[in-house]
Amino acid sequence: MSAPIKVPKGLYGVAVTETRIAKSDADGSLIYRGYPIADLAAHATFEEAAWLIIKGTLPTRGELDEFISSIGSRMEVSAKVYAVMRDLGRDSHPIDVLRTGISALGSVDSEPTVALQQASIEAKMSVLAANCHRVPRGSGPRGPKPAARFGANLLQMLTDREASEYEEWVFERVLMMYLEHDLNASSFTVRVVASTRADPYAAAAAGLAALKGPLHGGANEAAMDMLLEVRGPDNASAYVMSALKDGKKVMGFGHRVYKKLDPRAQLCKGYLRELLKKQGTDDSLYRLCDALENEMWERKKLPANLDFYAAPLMYSLGIEIPLYTPVFAASRVFGWMAHYDEQVAEDRLIRPDATYVGPTGLKYSPPGSG
Amino acid sequence: MSAPIKVPKGLYGVAVTETRIAKSDADGSLIYRGYPIADLAAHATFEEAAWLIIKGTLPTRGELDEFISSIGSRMEVSAKVYAVMRDLGRDSHPIDVLRTGISALGSVDSEPTVALQQASIEAKMSVLAANCHRVPRGSGPRGPKPAARFGANLLQMLTDREASEYEEWVFERVLMMYLEHDLNASSFTVRVVASTRADPYAAAAAGLAALKGPLHGGANEAAMDMLLEVRGPDNASAYVMSALKDGKKVMGFGHRVYKKLDPRAQLCKGYLRELLKKQGTDDSLYRLCDALENEMWERKKLPANLDFYAAPLMYSLGIEIPLYTPVFAASRVFGWMAHYDEQVAEDRLIRPDATYVGPTGLKYSPPGSG
Repeated sequence: MSAPIKVPKGLYGVAVTETRIAKSDADGSLIYRGYPIADLAAHATFEEAAWLIIKGTLPTRGELDEFISSIGSRMEVSAKVYAVMRDLGRDSHPIDVLRTGISALGSVDSEPTVALQQASIEAKMSVLAANCHRVPRGSGPRGPKPAARFGANLLQMLTDREASEYEEWVFERVLMMYLEHDLNASSFTVRVVASTRADPYAAAAAGLAALKGPLHGGANEAAMDMLLEVRGPDNASAYVMSALKDGKKVMGFGHRVYKKLDPRAQLCKGYLRELLKKQGTDDSLYRLCDALENEMWERKKLPANLDFYAAPLMYSLGIEIPLYTPVFAASRVFGWMAHYDEQVAEDRLIRPDATYVGPTGLKYSPPGSG
Repeated sequence: MSAPIKVPKGLYGVAVTETRIAKSDADGSLIYRGYPIADLAAHATFEEAAWLIIKGTLPTRGELDEFISSIGSRMEVSAKVYAVMRDLGRDSHPIDVLRTGISALGSVDSEPTVALQQASIEAKMSVLAANCHRVPRGSGPRGPKPAARFGANLLQMLTDREASEYEEWVFERVLMMYLEHDLNASSFTVRVVASTRADPYAAAAAGLAALKGPLHGGANEAAMDMLLEVRGPDNASAYVMSALKDGKKVMGFGHRVYKKLDPRAQLCKGYLRELLKKQGTDDSLYRLCDALENEMWERKKLPANLDFYAAPLMYSLGIEIPLYTPVFAASRVFGWMAHYDEQVAEDRLIRPDATYVGPTGLKYSPPGSG
């Protein structure tokens, strides 16, 4: 074997594969299968965007109808999976519950093909996301209304209330923002698992494992906790100054790719302003976000990222904070499945090398009293 | 951002990090923390080798005693985890059950530190491995005997019979061979998940997800199925010829790293010969393996790998075939936890880039009748 190729740690800036799914760029652009995110957000439904991500093109009317019906007909979750979630008990973390539920689904689901297994996972992830906090705490599962739109259905399961048309439209946009983001840690995890030819349930469970990490999932929840702590726009400046002085991380800022602007955050910022207006709510949450954003840009040149603006949107839509990362998963699962397919088509086991820098030539000696 | 560095697909030959844990080499050598595998296999106990892998040095007597007691005292598995495994039902795949069990453990375990969480996972993985096939089928769990040696205890739980001293010794060697193998797909999965700062339960569940893939786990089981199909040494030549003619994979041959010789396979081959002798069994299983090995080397220049010889060893020890990959996991989990620690110490999110080769500049249009 020739000498290994050395690359930067964390694979930063290393193109490990070719992709046709999405491209985020440092200049602040994001495309899904060639379409700018702003164009899709302005015009597409979530179902159209999800189909685009997994199939590569926008659907025809017939394909879209079939997709909606395929997902809708797979939303009913087996009592076995709910039993597993209930067994975990009331102190369990929602993402642990969701990961365990999807892992269990892989054991009890009986879809005959990989494509139908993926449809089943995509359908049930949203139902389990809505129920991963309540079921372990002893409440009955909130069932899906498979006839409803994907976003409206999920929002209803999450909040148990009738949302306005605009609220449903905004929630679909939030889901659209979370759909896909090239080789983020969970999607790369899914690809490594897919490269072993493991089934999509195993891959999705592994994706959820990566989402448990505070450097990947959880940031939207942490951002909301922070917004509630700061409380009003007048406190923004003092909060940022004190956080920076104490070396405390201000949640929802900075991104590995976007150095100046996260296009998803800017779209969500617009939705937040509009949503509060339509809801007839006082706009102090918007002004708080705006003030923090300005402070962080002036002091640290860090842009607000998606999580920073998705959090107050979900809050204003009445979604409980522990469900924000499950919502992320309910959408990102479509991206994961697109990566699963692309990796399987690549047909190459991901098995890197490492530079061994430890000792050599040692010889065993029995344990001494040391 | 500068232009991305392009590397071979599958990260083949790409050194993505530095490691001090293990080094496998194309020339047929494998070291754990500097010690050749043959040296450890000849002299060390499994517990010493496992400590070596996770801590970096061989233990003193005091460290070893403490390690044995720490693992032993954490073997009792919560009834909640067994309930989850039972919920999955009798048609479930053992690796799905094990992954779901470890995922559930992450939700119900209450160890206060990462190090103790790892000890808990290491201890319970062996208990769950022994029970992942029986519990979903309605049998009660076989409990651990925490006072016994790690290998003897696992062998007893797996087979429910008293093993001879030599059988226990051999089983410890099998475990030792599976302990660690640098950046194999499951260990790399564990590292990607660890890089998000997810907890070790999430990382171990993701490692098990990768092990579900037939290109990674499962090979020892497939090898044994094949050996039982070929039946006797006299059929070896005809079987290989026919398999090669039909383009069928002969299980247990070839390796991404070892091109001439897998040192673990050669050690296990010796144990197999000796084990059959000590058991007073007819040696036709050994001669079958030997004949297949010779055929495959002469015809394809592919060496037998670990799975090829670990399988008949586990078979001769009375372990049911569906438990071979769970046994792999019960040992490899120590390697996973060593990689977890090394990755966390590296403190760099694994977030690769990809070369986008899809379309650009597209503009949304509503679904047509297509």
